[in-house]
Amino acid sequence: MSNDNATNPQINLVFTNHVASTLDEAVKNLSPSSIHVLVDVNTEAFVLPLLQAESEAVAKAGIIRIKAGEANKNLDTLTSVWKQLGDSSANRKSLLINLGGGVVTDMGAFAAATFKRGIAFINVPTTLLCAVDASVGGKNGINFNGLKNEIGMFRDADLAIISTLYFNTLTSQELLSGYAEMLKHGLVSSPELTRKMLAYDVTNYTPDTLLKLLEESVAVKQKYVEADHNDQGVRRALNLGHTVGHTFESLALERKSPLSHGYAVAFGMVVALVMSKIKYNFPSEILNAYVTYVRKHYGAFEFTCDDYQRLLSFMHRDKKNDTPDAVNFTLLKAPGDVLVNVPLTDDEIKNALDIYRDLLGLP
Amino acid sequence: MSNDNATNPQINLVFTNHVASTLDEAVKNLSPSSIHVLVDVNTEAFVLPLLQAESEAVAKAGIIRIKAGEANKNLDTLTSVWKQLGDSSANRKSLLINLGGGVVTDMGAFAAATFKRGIAFINVPTTLLCAVDASVGGKNGINFNGLKNEIGMFRDADLAIISTLYFNTLTSQELLSGYAEMLKHGLVSSPELTRKMLAYDVTNYTPDTLLKLLEESVAVKQKYVEADHNDQGVRRALNLGHTVGHTFESLALERKSPLSHGYAVAFGMVVALVMSKIKYNFPSEILNAYVTYVRKHYGAFEFTCDDYQRLLSFMHRDKKNDTPDAVNFTLLKAPGDVLVNVPLTDDEIKNALDIYRDLLGLP
Repeated sequence: MSNDNATNPQINLVFTNHVASTLDEAVKNLSPSSIHVLVDVNTEAFVLPLLQAESEAVAKAGIIRIKAGEANKNLDTLTSVWKQLGDSSANRKSLLINLGGGVVTDMGAFAAATFKRGIAFINVPTTLLCAVDASVGGKNGINFNGLKNEIGMFRDADLAIISTLYFNTLTSQELLSGYAEMLKHGLVSSPELTRKMLAYDVTNYTPDTLLKLLEESVAVKQKYVEADHNDQGVRRALNLGHTVGHTFESLALERKSPLSHGYAVAFGMVVALVMSKIKYNFPSEILNAYVTYVRKHYGAFEFTCDDYQRLLSFMHRDKKNDTPDAVNFTLLKAPGDVLVNVPLTDDEIKNALDIYRDLLGLP
Repeated sequence: MSNDNATNPQINLVFTNHVASTLDEAVKNLSPSSIHVLVDVNTEAFVLPLLQAESEAVAKAGIIRIKAGEANKNLDTLTSVWKQLGDSSANRKSLLINLGGGVVTDMGAFAAATFKRGIAFINVPTTLLCAVDASVGGKNGINFNGLKNEIGMFRDADLAIISTLYFNTLTSQELLSGYAEMLKHGLVSSPELTRKMLAYDVTNYTPDTLLKLLEESVAVKQKYVEADHNDQGVRRALNLGHTVGHTFESLALERKSPLSHGYAVAFGMVVALVMSKIKYNFPSEILNAYVTYVRKHYGAFEFTCDDYQRLLSFMHRDKKNDTPDAVNFTLLKAPGDVLVNVPLTDDEIKNALDIYRDLLGLP
């Protein structure tokens, strides 16, 4: 990653399982006037004590607490973070360390970027999904007025410390949810990385092996995000599996049994690879290996042909869809060979949904 | 200004009294998906109808209304701006036009910079103070938790249209309040600009002459702000008169007869020039001309030697003051020859306050 950092000094990423010493060194360099750690109830209970014991910086930091969960990623919680910063005498030279999953890092980054017109902040993701997804790209914010991430901005953390050290508190489902994004990075990158990821059982990980794989995965995202500074379209590669995935999430929500985002993407990518096979002869060997991985670890999102019309109407309403008559997809000729904005007709989509159901053994 | 714009493409400033046509051309170039104009009750009544009659873009824009005044530059009002944007279907390609004084442009800029992670915005200042002070530097934000501009960020407007067209709705006091900052820009720039400004009666302005003077004044601020990208100290030149000025504001607030910021700065600069005369032999001719201008137009902020201790305690508490034993001032050897962080003892400060009272004819 060091080469990437050199070309884009705003992104400062370190992959390490020596979190405490890395953090202490970074804090020493920043020499903030005060240190504040943002935690939710989970990271306060399970991660903060470990870091307080090992990191000088965290041991002397003030603690800012918020409730856990997406439902609390809102203006009220943000207001309380701003207020706790002010009431604990944070000033322009203070540092905020965001210790948690995506809710903590998204909201903490936005709070820091706007407190006294911006103070330094360090992200320490404690979930795989946050480590792989939220650490590059600089997006932050809160949900507002019923919409996800309605209020926010772009600002890179002064440092993001990516570690697998705290993943032992995660369930297999949480690990798999994050791993879906890693599989996506493999697929939009190369056959080699795809095969390596499909050969790895994330539910049975070892910290150092997963950390290496995570570093390779984030490097892929970073490459696409940086390329997108010049070309608005390139980043859509990272949308692989998401058009169908979002549709599955919406249908699951209507059925009142919500599907996690990572699982939805894992299933959505099955459909995207089927479409890629039909239109561009995507290699069967990789498609089959991917389907096997999904069946073994993720199971299947179930629906019948009676649901097709509902799924199609969701797809046509997707905000990323610019053309009213067709639905655009990100597809692959092969792993790493990406085509964005490929329009497919409703019949082509239904055909792919048929094959998805066959492949995942659905009735 | 065109040269300055070339070196810093992020700052896009136009000085013109053809506001409507300039705005329409800019909107055409931006081709936003929707247009929204932010107004307070004053600009809605007095300025908006003029622009609606002349500008196609404004005629078809949605209107977002907020209450007027610094007391409403808060989170509640910001929340209502965000909500009105969302409820009127603004999206990432929408444009917000901020039409008003500092409260409208500060809050509107922050709302735009954070709505859906940032949409385009154009500032159209309608007060002299906002035109001279808030159009360069990219600062935005709201008051929060009892502190001014506690929450905010830096982002330049896509365009700021500086005009004197709407100043006919301003009182002489409002004009003079803004002109104090222009006088400051003269003093930190050159003897020529200082003399030109002291020869001009802003309360009896003509739109085109004032516009030219405004352009020269803003160019000074822009120069200092740009220099400050490399050197944290240079910008402190713009603090001339502010250390004492803030102190006068605080004392006036305690007396429950608040002093406007511009007037406080005008009086504070008398003290700063006296200090400059004593320490660096600042030219008497300019000092006298400045004092004459202030006595004629601004009057005097009154206090006796019984107030010195209170004034000194305010100065020692000023957040811009890094050294505990002395108070730091921005002073001048001559107009344009600026010294920042000059430490003065309490006795030196008291001496300057004595002379201030003499010069302004106070008992």
